[in-house]
Amino acid sequence: MRVRGKVEYLGTTWAGWQVQPGQHTIQGDIEKALEIVIGAPVRVLAAGRTDSGVHATGQVIAFDIPAELELGRLCRSINALTDASVSVAELAPVNDAFDPRRHALSRTYEYTILNARPPSPFLLDRCWHLHAPLDLALLQRLAAMVVGEHDFTAFRAMDCMSPSTERYVIESTWSRTGHVLTYRVTANAFLKQMVRTLVGTMVDVAINRLPEAAFAELLDGASRTQAGRTAPPGGLALVHVAYPPEFD
Amino acid sequence: MRVRGKVEYLGTTWAGWQVQPGQHTIQGDIEKALEIVIGAPVRVLAAGRTDSGVHATGQVIAFDIPAELELGRLCRSINALTDASVSVAELAPVNDAFDPRRHALSRTYEYTILNARPPSPFLLDRCWHLHAPLDLALLQRLAAMVVGEHDFTAFRAMDCMSPSTERYVIESTWSRTGHVLTYRVTANAFLKQMVRTLVGTMVDVAINRLPEAAFAELLDGASRTQAGRTAPPGGLALVHVAYPPEFD
Repeated sequence: MRVRGKVEYLGTTWAGWQVQPGQHTIQGDIEKALEIVIGAPVRVLAAGRTDSGVHATGQVIAFDIPAELELGRLCRSINALTDASVSVAELAPVNDAFDPRRHALSRTYEYTILNARPPSPFLLDRCWHLHAPLDLALLQRLAAMVVGEHDFTAFRAMDCMSPSTERYVIESTWSRTGHVLTYRVTANAFLKQMVRTLVGTMVDVAINRLPEAAFAELLDGASRTQAGRTAPPGGLALVHVAYPPEFD
Repeated sequence: MRVRGKVEYLGTTWAGWQVQPGQHTIQGDIEKALEIVIGAPVRVLAAGRTDSGVHATGQVIAFDIPAELELGRLCRSINALTDASVSVAELAPVNDAFDPRRHALSRTYEYTILNARPPSPFLLDRCWHLHAPLDLALLQRLAAMVVGEHDFTAFRAMDCMSPSTERYVIESTWSRTGHVLTYRVTANAFLKQMVRTLVGTMVDVAINRLPEAAFAELLDGASRTQAGRTAPPGGLALVHVAYPPEFD
């Protein structure tokens, strides 16, 4: 029986989602817990392979289990066996063909900036702390340019292996609550480090490291070296993944 | 020169606010940082002596420094020297007579309950995690009874030494956002563990460990043994302290 679930994690202490030899990964932690409960190796599929230090409140996973297992108990067992920084919820039966990565219609990420002089213990490892005052209206203008289909070559990791570089961005907004700036972006899919490079580049424009006029050109297939910094991973979280009704 | 400031801290790893011999305390951490910067011992006064594990977003402090010190630099120095779980902000000159404890008009605390089956890594050590569904309307009825002047003998720690047990509660409300229930309470002052005992007792009523009808009587000088549990410290935060205009 295929099961779908939602995962929350604080990525700070992990080498990212995906299993890698010799690394402490979230996927590995959940698979280890499932193997203990089920007594055989289980492969866990996920919507997004978040990088080291990146968080999730809405990662979606799927895996196969023997049909006789009760899902409420299974969920409690997984949570008892995984690290406290990882929590699995909402386990439910799903179509056997469901692949959380291939069937995702869109992913939504949020990036948090603490824009104030003093640090915030409550946001430690959960934000990018920048003292220089950032112009919200300017950030909002830049974010609006990101909406639509673009060639995001300038906004991907140097080692990103994706054969295509076009992505369709549905939503791209900045908002402010007190000293906290939040960038929210939804796209059909993302290139490696795309959100962090978008945020780093918008910040570079806001602090006058890059001219505002150059930003639009970057969205038309410029090279990575023309864009700005890669924002640190701790500010980023995968918050939602949308699916067609048959998998929801 | 007397200086007023605001302190945020995650109380999880600390033995509470107040300096105690051989204990790791927030007051001690800030005083140690100030002694390094100023070169002489400095005593830091605070609005509330929060217990071990209790947090603050709006603790108010005061201390004396040589008049020639620049406050922006002093604040940055303190934050560089204190633990990352402690952050000092908004340092400003204040009337020499200012005592953040004696002059406080009111204190506001918030208590966070995660009312859901799966744990939340984002609220780890920042909430009381209770699976049993709690009736918000019932909690709101109980909270409304707390408003006004009462004898809170039933709602204080067994070792609370306060000579008076009457306190005046200005605001006492429960609200819900998703799976998170928040109790917000403002009073002229609080007895030791008063908020945690109020929350623990309201929860005990909500899960039918105590009858709803008994709650009103508890607010009229009943003994501690008649009230309910003391809620764990991690859900509690001191969020605001109000002062008369001359100290604001």
